[in-house]
This record gives sequence, structure tokens and C-alpha cells, in this order.
Amino acid sequence: MREMRESKQPLYLKVAHQIERQIRKGTLRVGDRVPSIRGLKRQQGVSVSTVLQAYFWLENQGWIEPRPQSGFYVRVPMAQLPPEPDVQTPQSAPTEVTVVDLINEVLHSLGDHSKVPLGAALANASLYPNRKLNQIIRKIMRDDPAHSARYDPAVGQEELRRQIARRSVSYGCDFSPKELVITCGGMETLNLGLRAVARHGDVIAIESPTYFSILQIIESLGMKAVEIPTHPRTGMDLDALARAIRNHGVRACISMTNCHNPLGFVLDDNYKKELVALLSRHNVPLIEDDVYGDLTFSGIRPKTAKAFDTEGIVLLCSSFSKVLAPGFRVGWIHAGRFQKAVTHLKFINTIASPSLPQLTIAEFIHSGGYDRYLRTLRSTLSNNVQLYSQAILRYFPEGTKVSRPVGGYVLWVELPERVDCVRLYRAALANGISIVPGSIFAASSRFTHHIRISCGNPWSPSINQALIALGKLCDR
Amino acid sequence: MREMRESKQPLYLKVAHQIERQIRKGTLRVGDRVPSIRGLKRQQGVSVSTVLQAYFWLENQGWIEPRPQSGFYVRVPMAQLPPEPDVQTPQSAPTEVTVVDLINEVLHSLGDHSKVPLGAALANASLYPNRKLNQIIRKIMRDDPAHSARYDPAVGQEELRRQIARRSVSYGCDFSPKELVITCGGMETLNLGLRAVARHGDVIAIESPTYFSILQIIESLGMKAVEIPTHPRTGMDLDALARAIRNHGVRACISMTNCHNPLGFVLDDNYKKELVALLSRHNVPLIEDDVYGDLTFSGIRPKTAKAFDTEGIVLLCSSFSKVLAPGFRVGWIHAGRFQKAVTHLKFINTIASPSLPQLTIAEFIHSGGYDRYLRTLRSTLSNNVQLYSQAILRYFPEGTKVSRPVGGYVLWVELPERVDCVRLYRAALANGISIVPGSIFAASSRFTHHIRISCGNPWSPSINQALIALGKLCDR
Repeated sequence: MREMRESKQPLYLKVAHQIERQIRKGTLRVGDRVPSIRGLKRQQGVSVSTVLQAYFWLENQGWIEPRPQSGFYVRVPMAQLPPEPDVQTPQSAPTEVTVVDLINEVLHSLGDHSKVPLGAALANASLYPNRKLNQIIRKIMRDDPAHSARYDPAVGQEELRRQIARRSVSYGCDFSPKELVITCGGMETLNLGLRAVARHGDVIAIESPTYFSILQIIESLGMKAVEIPTHPRTGMDLDALARAIRNHGVRACISMTNCHNPLGFVLDDNYKKELVALLSRHNVPLIEDDVYGDLTFSGIRPKTAKAFDTEGIVLLCSSFSKVLAPGFRVGWIHAGRFQKAVTHLKFINTIASPSLPQLTIAEFIHSGGYDRYLRTLRSTLSNNVQLYSQAILRYFPEGTKVSRPVGGYVLWVELPERVDCVRLYRAALANGISIVPGSIFAASSRFTHHIRISCGNPWSPSINQALIALGKLCDR
Repeated sequence: MREMRESKQPLYLKVAHQIERQIRKGTLRVGDRVPSIRGLKRQQGVSVSTVLQAYFWLENQGWIEPRPQSGFYVRVPMAQLPPEPDVQTPQSAPTEVTVVDLINEVLHSLGDHSKVPLGAALANASLYPNRKLNQIIRKIMRDDPAHSARYDPAVGQEELRRQIARRSVSYGCDFSPKELVITCGGMETLNLGLRAVARHGDVIAIESPTYFSILQIIESLGMKAVEIPTHPRTGMDLDALARAIRNHGVRACISMTNCHNPLGFVLDDNYKKELVALLSRHNVPLIEDDVYGDLTFSGIRPKTAKAFDTEGIVLLCSSFSKVLAPGFRVGWIHAGRFQKAVTHLKFINTIASPSLPQLTIAEFIHSGGYDRYLRTLRSTLSNNVQLYSQAILRYFPEGTKVSRPVGGYVLWVELPERVDCVRLYRAALANGISIVPGSIFAASSRFTHHIRISCGNPWSPSINQALIALGKLCDR
């Protein structure tokens, strides 16, 4: 399948390779601006979408980087970047999730606000448009004082579903409001999605590393996980996924295709197409977790795997918690052919989602405020991730490898093998610093010398001090 | 066990029986005010709590009725009241829930706002203190503009837990804020509770009839229901429950002890004590659903079964949806010895509950507004239930039996056996009237000539017309 992909090289790759060659030859040098979208479109006679895909690929490969309101620039070449974390090959057999106690211990510590917050994947409260949202809440209370005196329908407020449907075009979908179900945040989408497609005892294929709460949910529903090796930039190994499907009767697959937590990658469109095709052939539903999808540093909204779903097997899950207001508890799911089951489960899980937050977000999107705000947020986060990444490179022991996220706000750090991440996590906590040990991102013992660092807080002397201290703790 | 109870007659029953004798003898006549609480306390040399329990028992037995701000009065005796629905004896073996499709059909129709709303168990939006709540929201936004820019801890806002703990004394508990977990409404409490105490394949003892969504949850979790015959005033048959525990390895029991939906009873303290003792002996957790517990017409807050729980086996579930603001999605659970498991499940189900509604409710309780408001709401609902009940008696076919709720806002109506409740439900819908057919309150075919009528809307000509029309439809 890999071969097939390479032999039928898509147009955007040709465009991208040409720029790559110019950089390799030195025609374009570090700091140079690459041609503008319109320029390249004219020059190559291709569509804007093809140019955007080419830029995406180049960014993903580490050749160029976006600068807000200014375009794309050639960046420090890969060779001079900190090395990337390795792919780890997990056991190929389905396993019970054995790390739940450690996950709970870590989660408990993440809520401790007295620590330097490098743990929780959460942007600083000051980055959210709180006053703007409050203005909208005041207006809603004036217009409809009884806003919360009714149950919403299980599927949620129509106006919010309409606004989400409108935006869905930007990630390659064109939803109808009727196809969406609003939830109590992204976590509920994963629960409803999994309960709709799989049962007690079923095997679920997941990325390795994966967002740890997926492990908790799988365990709580009495399901088993089969972990698929996942590259820090190119995602799950599709051959390994195909083998797992053949050998273990995989009932569903979960993937975070955009701004992956913890790896930070955005998968390319071809990969997404292949992933959906593979799963469609075997009738395996894909739960696609896109909660960070609006946070690419380039500002180009990547497509979702859902965009390539012709069979209705993709359950696209998203939320406003990571980008707008965690305390609103508003997420949503497009469940494809499982919509009826998901709607039923939504009702019996929480009846409906809170009304006022839904109305508020609907108005914020409708007014154009949401997309304007996202531009600022992305550029802030991009900046944070660079600063944190450079500091880690400077302060951490030789041999440290760091992910190269193209969106979101987490870094995945592979430390020298001698470092035990759980001991480091506990030592850090004792020193007033909160981090997440890598081993909770896999069902059973793995990523034992990895940690995740959240860059959701503005760079500050205390963050700098904390990273210096962490670097020293690695060697104790 | 019944014998034992009667031989060791508690003090309040002696007090109550004395008043009962006075009524039977005509010393106290219909419309007479019974002695005041203080008067009876002095006269009998007993505690206020004993007097209140006596009044409760008398009200439950239909001898007296409360009048707001005025005390208790002798009411029309039982013999002249419409007859009560019969107890039905369900199959004693655990069954799969087979009515889920019908429940979904009914739920779908309940959301249709063009119908006369006799279906959904929901008070009219105008009864809720919307403007007062909005005032509080404005204040919170001024004091803390970033109110929703953080995740709350999984257990919820401390201030709300503190206020709930303070009020818990009124129903015989004395919780610590640390023991409570805030949820997304009452439905989430039932999910978390069941998932914490039972697994796929386990048998759950439930009331018959029971709140239909309990059936949906049991079905969705792959559990089985064993239905215990439930009397319209005295609750589950404890001997039948004991047999079910012995014969079917019951893993958990669910009961609505106060203002039961659909039966409307409040169980007496002795019963609650026995229920908890029975379950404790067999180590069977009790999920106690108290969502309507604040809505007794008498204004006397009944104790919960939880008040008699010395082993930590009672999971007390409640919510503000039925009494204050359905759209806030705020409920709570005291899970006894299962608190850790419930907190874990809360996190992986929805992470946390919405922040602003929690803060708002906390302030409303703190200010005293909640308890003041409840007094008005109870008296309105009490009045509604009487008006609806009288109309049903007048317009429905001979042989109709009606429950005698002492709180909440639903009536359970047993129609003559010839009436098929599902056909009646559909005919009513075709005539623009929403009701709930009785058969969805049991796991498998039962209550086929019963309906539930919600009295949550103020009496009006259109309600009157709808009940006349319903009465006629019964005979088609």
C-alpha cells in the first residue's frame, strides 16, 4: 500500500518536492519567505488547495514554518533540530489496561494549582476570550431569561449544530445540523462513540502513545486495547493496523489525526484516506478525536479523516474545551451511521448538555468572533511551543529528543534511557513542578523514559526555572 | 420482619394512631385543623421530629393534608377518594429489558412542544426562579470573568458541595463536602452509580413500575433487571426483594424513596431503615434516586434511606434539574464506600460538570433563596396535582384509579383493563396531546392499561380540554 501511494504521487507532493529541492540546494535559505499561496498557484497552475496541502506537508516535514499574518518561511533544517522521539513497537496482542492506578495518581496531581503547570493539557485562563463570552451571556439572559428552564433535546441546541455544520466545510466535511449531537465535552464523545460501536470484551485498536483517558475509558467498559506503533510525525503504522485487524478481530479504532496528543503531528490527507479505506474494507469504525484540530500553528485547518468517509464509519469527535472554555463542557460528535445509537446513549448518559454554554458558543461562532480569536490563540501557542522546546534542548541531558508539533500545546520528550519517568514525575512534584510521565500513554509498561510537557502557559521566569530544575532532576 | 416492625411500634406511630382514631371517631372532622406541631409536642411530650414523622405517616395514609403556611387538615377519607392503582406482581426472574424501542419512541414525542404537555416530567419554565438565577450569573461574571476558563475538579466546585452538605442535615444526613461528587444532572448519577457497583451481566433489583430511563441504562450496560412488586404508597415488597436477592444474586438495587416517579409516594422512615438493613445484610448497594425529594407538598423534607446507612452501601443520587434549572445540568451523588470509583468514572465520563451553573446554584442556596423558592414551588405543584387529579376522576371512564402523590408532579393512572395504553398514547398524540404510556415503566410487558400524567404545567382551559379529550379517547 505504501508503494501504491508513492507510485501515484499526488500533485501537491510534486509541488512540495520542488520547494524541498530548492531548500536542499540552497536556493531558498533559512529565514527566506517561500512563495505566497497566490504566487505559487499562478506559477504552478494548481489550485489554492493543492498549494495549501504542499505547505502543510513541508511544514510537517520540518522544512518551513508559518509566521502569523506573514506567510511561510524556511526554518532551521531537520539535521540541526533536536532529534525526534523514536517509534516504539508495542506488544501486538490485545492487553488489559494496567496503568489505571498510575493515571489516577497523575490526574490527581494535575489539579494541584500550587505547582508549576507543565502537566495538564490546558491553555492558561488568560488566553481565552472570557470577557467576550460574558458579553454574549449577558445578551442571552436579556433576550431569553428562561434559557435554562428547559431540557434541550438530546442532540443539543439547533443553532450551535448549525454553526458547527457551517464550519465543517473547512475540514473537508459538509455536515447537516441534523447529523450532529452536542455532548458534555470531548470526553463524553469518546464514551458515547465507544459504547455505540463496541461491547464488553471487544478489542479496540489505539495509537501508541495515546491520550491516556482513552485507556481509562476502554478499561472501564471492560474492553481490551491493541496498541499500534505510532510514528511521531506520520502516525499509526497502517500495516501493523491491518495485521491487528486480521489477527485480533479489532472492533473499533481510535485515532487523533490532527494536532495529536501527545505527539503533535497532523497526518496528511493521503494517509487519512488510506486509513479510512483500510478500516472501511474491514468494516471497523474509526473514532476520530479532533479536539485540537483548530489549533494548527500554520492556521491552515487540516482535513479530518471524516472528510474521506464514504461509508459512515467515522465518528468525528470534537469539543470547545481545548480551544475556548473548558468549564462550558460543550463537545460534539458526528457519528455517521451510528448517529441513532449515539443520540440514544447521549440521552441516557446525561440527557442533554448545558444550555447557556451552547447558546453562547453558537453566538460567538456566528458573530465571526471565534475564528478571529483562533488566529491569535494559534500564534500564541506556536510561540510558546518554540520557547519551551528550545529551553528543553538547552537544559535537558544530552540524548534528549523532542517532538515537533505542528499544532496544539504539548511536547513529547524522550529522555535518555536511564531516566525513569515515574520517578522523575514524583521528584518534580516534590519540587513543585507538575509534568506527565510517558508511561501513562500506553496500556502496559512502555514510554518509561518519556514525559509530556504542556506549553499552555505563557513563557515566564518561573517556567524557565522549572525547566532548568527538571533538567537537573533527570540526572539524579 | 413485618411482624417485628409492628411489635416494636415506634413512638411516632403511637402518636399517629391516636390522631387516626380521633378522625375515625369523628372527633376530628374533614376540614378540621389537626393540632400544631408545637401543640402536639407539648401535649404528648415527644420531640418535634416525632411529631413530623407522625404527620408524614398520616398524610401518606391519606388522613390529613398540608395547606401551605397553615398546617395540616383532615382530608376527605380514603373511601371517598378515587381508588388507588393496584400492585402488579411482575415475573420474579431477571429479564432483559425489551421496551427500549418504545421508550425511545415516547421520549422523542415528549420533545414536541406543539403538544399539550401531559407527558414530560418537567415543571413549566415560568415556575423556575429564572430572573433570580440570572442576577446571580451577572454577579459571578463581574467577580470572576474567567469562571469557565478552567476545568473544575472531577468532584465539582467546593462551594456547591459545601451548600449541599449543609442542606443534607434536613434529610437525616450530615455530609462532608469532601464526600460529594457533582455530576451533569441526575441521569449521570445513575450511570456512574450503576457502573461503580455492577458489571456487564449483573442483576439489578428495581421497582415496578420504575422510572423508565433506569431500564434504558440497565440495558445499555448489558445488565439484567429483576422487578420487585411495588405498592403505590408503601413501596417495594421487601419480602419479594429478599427472595430476589437469595434467588438471583442481585448485585445492586435502585429505589426512589421520596416523591416516587411515577407513583408519588414517600416511604416512611421505618421502611427505609428496613430496606437498608436488608441490603446491608446481603452486601447489596442501594442506588437511591432522590431527585424529587425537595418537592413534598407538606414542606416537611423526608429523610432519605441514606440517613440509615451505617455501612456506606447507599449511593444517594440527586439533582437540581427537577426543581430549579434542567438546562444547568447539575446533579450530585454521595456514593458512600464507592466514592473513589464514582469520582474516577465521573472524570472519564465527562471530566467535570459545567462551572457557571454550579457557582450559580451554590450562591442561590447560600443566600437562602433556594429554600424560600421551594416553598412556593411545592405549594404550586400540590395545587396542580389536586386539580389534575380531580379532572381525571371527572372525565375518565368508570373504574379509573389514580395515585395519591405526596410530592413531585406526576400522577399514575390505572385505566380499565380494556384500554391499551400504547394505542391511547398514539391516539392522544394524533390529537395533539402528549402522555406517557405505562408499559415503558417496566422491563417487559406490564402496566398495559396505565398512563403517567405530568402536572408540571399550571391548570388552564387547554389542559382541561386535553383531559376531557383523553377521557373520551379511552373509550374508543
